[in-house]
This record gives sequence, C-alpha cells and structure tokens, in this order.
Amino acid sequence: MNLQDYINIVPDWPKPGVQFKDITPLMGNGDAFRYATDQIVEYARKKEIDLVVGPEARGFIVGCPVAYSLGVGFAPVRKEGKLPRETIKVEYGLEYGKDVLTIHKDAVKPGQRVLITDDLLATGGTIDATIKLVEQLGGVVAGIAFLIELNYLNGRANLDGYDILTLLTYE
Amino acid sequence: MNLQDYINIVPDWPKPGVQFKDITPLMGNGDAFRYATDQIVEYARKKEIDLVVGPEARGFIVGCPVAYSLGVGFAPVRKEGKLPRETIKVEYGLEYGKDVLTIHKDAVKPGQRVLITDDLLATGGTIDATIKLVEQLGGVVAGIAFLIELNYLNGRANLDGYDILTLLTYE
Repeated sequence: MNLQDYINIVPDWPKPGVQFKDITPLMGNGDAFRYATDQIVEYARKKEIDLVVGPEARGFIVGCPVAYSLGVGFAPVRKEGKLPRETIKVEYGLEYGKDVLTIHKDAVKPGQRVLITDDLLATGGTIDATIKLVEQLGGVVAGIAFLIELNYLNGRANLDGYDILTLLTYE
Repeated sequence: MNLQDYINIVPDWPKPGVQFKDITPLMGNGDAFRYATDQIVEYARKKEIDLVVGPEARGFIVGCPVAYSLGVGFAPVRKEGKLPRETIKVEYGLEYGKDVLTIHKDAVKPGQRVLITDDLLATGGTIDATIKLVEQLGGVVAGIAFLIELNYLNGRANLDGYDILTLLTYE
C-alpha cells in the first residue's frame, strides 16, 4: 500500500506558499488507517513502550489507536486551559506562530518509556515541546512516530538524539 | 472492571458549579482504555458501521481506536477554520457557550452507516450538530457512543430517535 495516495496536498493553506498535507483521506480509509497504525505499533513494540503521548488534535488521531493496539495508556498534550487538573507547561514556536503546550502533572510516571505521536514532522517545534514535557515528568522518550516528514524543513535537526519513525516523506 | 474508578471529578471546572468529568485517568490506563474501547467496538459491530465520526478533540480519542479495531475509517468534525478543504458547517449552542462545527464535504458518502463518538453526553448540543453534518452529507447515523452520560442534563431528549450507548452514567 502506498500511503502517499491517501494524502491530499492543499495549496496555500493555512497561508500562501504552504502546501498543506491533509491526512483526512488516509484516516477516512479503513485499510489505510489500519496499515499506517500497524506500522507504528510494530515500531513501538520494539521500543517496549509503556505509554503513548500526543499533542492535540492530530496527535490523538495517530496515537490513540496505537495505544489501544499495544494495550497501553494514552496521555494528551493540550493547549493551555484545556486540561482540568494540575499541569506543567512549555512555550514553543510552531510553523505558523507561537503557543503553549501543557500536560497533566501525573500523566507520565518516572521511568515510563514513552512513544510520542503526531501526524507531521515540520520544523519539530511542537514535538520538541512535547519531549520537554515528558522529560520534565521523568519519562523516557523511547521513540517518536509521524505519518509524514517534510524533509525540506529539516525538523530532525531539532530532535537530535531521538529515535524517529516516519511513514512517508516529502522532499 | 468499574470504569467509574478511572474518572476524575474536578470541582468547579471550567466554571463554578460544574463537576467536570475528567477522562484522562481512563485513557491513561491501558486496561481501562482497551476495555472501554472494546465495549464500543462490540456495539458498533452490531450496527454494521462503515465509518466513525467524532468531534474534536475528545471525540477523536474515543473514536479513532474504535475505527482502527473495526477496520473502518474515521472522519473528524472540527471547529471552523481547522479543516483544509471544502467543508459544510452547523452552528450550535454548547454547555458553556456557542460555536460552529465543520466537516469535509467528502468525509461521508451517501448511505454510509456512521457511528458518532464523544467522551461525554451533557446537553447533547455538540452531538446534535454532528448528526446534522453527517445527515447533510447523506450518512445514516446508525449509533452514537459515549464514555459518560450526565443523566441530570437530559441530553438524550435532544437526540430523540437515535440509538445511544453510554458506558457509565452520573445521576
């Protein structure tokens, strides 16, 4: 299966010059969604993952089926003000602006081996912030999985030292 | 397994007088997350579901593992401005204000049997809007599944005529 067939490239969205990679056709197709998820699950098994963590909202779409299949929990990383209990937070720059991400203080137990998931690796800002949150809570980032990597933005350079899986890449 | 043990009740959040039902402990526990998901999957199999649809962001957490397990696709319902291609929209009143929900115009094919998922049935406003979106695209709402139902808000009255599964209820 070529997952690229299920990515819709939307020109000039959300701003002129950006070729947005829309994953909704992939998620909307049962075979493609399962195939992509199963590849991440296989990777996660080798990494002996205890917990999946993903930033809202597309990180949930990628990570929750992986957690379910592995039989481990999922912890959401959300924008400020969205999580109801005590959180820690990190400020970060993202592809189109600046923002704050938070996680519940009890979401990760010290020593837990964490898989971080998101749909797309662009500059890596969101995931760098997510790594900081997980590590502040004592978690071990054992792997990071994306559906898509934009090679030309070189996000890997910002995630140096971490193990990364991407299912498809754009040059 | 008593799922109620995995719900954290947060007093006065997001506003005074609301006892917020926080599902993050349920999702964060691999056994509880799988047990809850499998109950929805069993329900969905009986309804012969072709597609799962959920509103952001907690509807993704509930619905994506269900779609994965069934081997069907998942279509996101999102706030205005979040989906990159042509959408239809519905305005709705929710528990704490007013908002607009959108879905991609090609997300549901006419005649598809749809399961709608969300974490919590409160007044039913979000799900009523989601039903309207699915039906405008020609989908058949064959079932609606929630983790939690707040009986005292009587959201079922707003979803009259639809088949509803809830895994736990609060009086």
